[in-house]
Amino acid sequence: MKKICVLFFFTCIVAPAQTEDEQQIKRIYETALTQGSAYNWLKHLSNQIGGRLSGSVQAQQAVDFTKTQLDMLGLDRVWLQPVMVPKWVRGTPEFAYIETTPGITTNVPICALGGSVATPLGGLKANVVEVKSLEDLKVFGEERIKGKIVFFNRPMDPKLIDTFESYSGSVDQRNNGAEEAAKYGAVGVIVRSMTLRLDDFPHTGAMSYGETALENRIPAAAISTNGAELLSTTLKLNPNIKFYFKQNCRQEEDVESFNVIGEITGASHPDEIILVGGHLDSWDLGDGSHDDGAGCVQSMEVLRLLKVTGYKPKRTIRTVLFMNEENGLHGGNKYKETAQEKNENHIFALESDSGGFSPRGFSFESSDANLRQAQSWAPLFKPYLIHFFELGYSGADIRPLNNGETVMAGLRPDSQRYFDHHHAENDTFEHVNKRELELGAAAMTSLVYLFDKYGTVD
Amino acid sequence: MKKICVLFFFTCIVAPAQTEDEQQIKRIYETALTQGSAYNWLKHLSNQIGGRLSGSVQAQQAVDFTKTQLDMLGLDRVWLQPVMVPKWVRGTPEFAYIETTPGITTNVPICALGGSVATPLGGLKANVVEVKSLEDLKVFGEERIKGKIVFFNRPMDPKLIDTFESYSGSVDQRNNGAEEAAKYGAVGVIVRSMTLRLDDFPHTGAMSYGETALENRIPAAAISTNGAELLSTTLKLNPNIKFYFKQNCRQEEDVESFNVIGEITGASHPDEIILVGGHLDSWDLGDGSHDDGAGCVQSMEVLRLLKVTGYKPKRTIRTVLFMNEENGLHGGNKYKETAQEKNENHIFALESDSGGFSPRGFSFESSDANLRQAQSWAPLFKPYLIHFFELGYSGADIRPLNNGETVMAGLRPDSQRYFDHHHAENDTFEHVNKRELELGAAAMTSLVYLFDKYGTVD
Repeated sequence: MKKICVLFFFTCIVAPAQTEDEQQIKRIYETALTQGSAYNWLKHLSNQIGGRLSGSVQAQQAVDFTKTQLDMLGLDRVWLQPVMVPKWVRGTPEFAYIETTPGITTNVPICALGGSVATPLGGLKANVVEVKSLEDLKVFGEERIKGKIVFFNRPMDPKLIDTFESYSGSVDQRNNGAEEAAKYGAVGVIVRSMTLRLDDFPHTGAMSYGETALENRIPAAAISTNGAELLSTTLKLNPNIKFYFKQNCRQEEDVESFNVIGEITGASHPDEIILVGGHLDSWDLGDGSHDDGAGCVQSMEVLRLLKVTGYKPKRTIRTVLFMNEENGLHGGNKYKETAQEKNENHIFALESDSGGFSPRGFSFESSDANLRQAQSWAPLFKPYLIHFFELGYSGADIRPLNNGETVMAGLRPDSQRYFDHHHAENDTFEHVNKRELELGAAAMTSLVYLFDKYGTVD
Repeated sequence: MKKICVLFFFTCIVAPAQTEDEQQIKRIYETALTQGSAYNWLKHLSNQIGGRLSGSVQAQQAVDFTKTQLDMLGLDRVWLQPVMVPKWVRGTPEFAYIETTPGITTNVPICALGGSVATPLGGLKANVVEVKSLEDLKVFGEERIKGKIVFFNRPMDPKLIDTFESYSGSVDQRNNGAEEAAKYGAVGVIVRSMTLRLDDFPHTGAMSYGETALENRIPAAAISTNGAELLSTTLKLNPNIKFYFKQNCRQEEDVESFNVIGEITGASHPDEIILVGGHLDSWDLGDGSHDDGAGCVQSMEVLRLLKVTGYKPKRTIRTVLFMNEENGLHGGNKYKETAQEKNENHIFALESDSGGFSPRGFSFESSDANLRQAQSWAPLFKPYLIHFFELGYSGADIRPLNNGETVMAGLRPDSQRYFDHHHAENDTFEHVNKRELELGAAAMTSLVYLFDKYGTVD
């Protein structure tokens, strides 16, 4: 009994010594939460610059601003990597209505999908056929589709816990709807917005015409989910109603833009590169705070937190702000080409492109051994409520680097609110919580620190 | 090689059979996410009724509304439990300014703390002494405090990951500041709002005068964090500035109100009660959506989800919407008294009073054995990203029931945004995400299901 008391007393007064890793991660988190720069950077990017579509003035302003901020961090190297990017321009605000009987109309909120062609100058009016999938087109056939507007109305699946899975399960309608519907003689395409909410925001996003000849391309727009519900119900009451929409978006010549890059050179293994990044371009409707201003400022913050906490990396830690993720991926592809030309060795690449929400963990594209190593670090993250270390998607910009050897990872923030804002006019600064953003930056920095210290597993 | 292929083929086509628990929990989640009632109930509670301070008309409307909704669920029993509650009334909106030189003033946002007395009719103007803690009062002494307004300005600690810990570390200023400052002759108290954000919302909340005689009670108000920063800086420049505030809040006679209770009677162990609850009253500045409308509708949803998924509980599952958590806890105490009189046996009690944010898990006040049993269920929750099963706080309303035998638990949602809204005018419906609310209800229902099925460990 006495022995037990003594032991008990001992454990009470002697807190377990913190390991070097625990101490460094604590420093990273405390610095992020008390002297963070991410939130103020994002404030500027969102409120002073705004939406940053590739080729826009705002995209160039974002390049200038982030380059200047990286310059001020006292890194070993900061540079711009030129890349030609597509330039798509929305033009004047889109306009659409449902016409139940001639002259009786109800306006509905739409926006052109990125990459879409314009409607004819006076707009486009036609009957509507509602489908739930690309497969439905084949079932309906040219007979029921020709001359009509195809309305893709399969909602994202609310039963899935990870909203990115729901998104993946529905986004083919947006990506390929126009290409496929044109094959059956459709004259236009309206797609239900990719969000789980019922609201009035249309959500834009990329679409592709594939190999469709220029003259056969049909205009495509997203309709808000409330608008989609209204259109669907109206069609059930009267299949002969018409839908009108007008948009004058256009594709211009490619223009030069830049990936923005900064790095701390590794002290002992400078040739082993650890990359952390996000994409600097955004859609034009909101200010791109979650997609992907958050990922950019978090990636910049990784370098700053390592410096401020006095950590000297063994390996080269490189932040890359990629241009043109949203409608081309030219930045990601250019970065990979250059890396290949220079024979660079990326041992680890981490992207943050899932919003500035409370971080839950990381998903990995890696060997089992490297996943297990990352999972072995889970106890270090437990005090910070980071619990998710699983195989999964990394990030669009870094995926061109995936050679089967580089460990690829993506930050996984809580996903519930992401598609409330994704590609819509309400992706704005006030919907980013300062602490959630900072906790994401700290989690990323901690993981980068561990990969720098321990390397990857062969 | 061939054998491996066959094995691989086998594992690919035969998904592991789901256990009964996995199936039931999946049904609960899918029902919550596709046919949930919680969000619509909250919409009514927040937008049609609004802030529900004990003794107010709105509190009575909330009793009527939730009773009616429970009646419609076809439960075995729904009733109101009468309880006398304090009635504190805010009166006309408060008003405050900093006076740097006579006649030169800057308005700052304040609100009376719940339970505070009014200022004199014409308001109160005095010099200010800034302190960081109750202990500072002793150091400063009567000499520097008498006749002044004491300004408590210790911020919540941003370094802590769990914001409830930060709150606990600062809220003594709000709870006891007036009682303690009065002992040194202070004439009023201004407390920095309990939030980690810098903004313009003052956050109210309960305060106590302890044993202070009526005639010695001094008025106490919260100031927004931006206001607190301004006041602090102004004081540094000139310690002789004056602060003016005016509030005409008052304590009225206690009135009758109700806990709202509904239950499904257990099929085989009706005398073993599983309680799930939140509190129906709220502060008056916002509409109490997160605190604690969310917890109420989630608790109601637990009963509905069990019924809709066709589950027949062995034990009695009881939802209690407690009245008067915010400024008296009379509902929680009354419930416990009655339970004791009736010799009721509560085996498990779960409260949701930490906001309607993405659920992360549960904290338990229980024996190690019961904690371990809950932790053994963690794999069932993993697909739903519920990962936190630790010892910790349960909930204010259920704690009177804590007899060392009942397993007590609290839902732990992500805490980062909670204090952005807590007790302030921006605790409103639009800040609740539908899916996050529903996921919380599903997590609670799943835990209740497991405790019903397996009971507690002796």
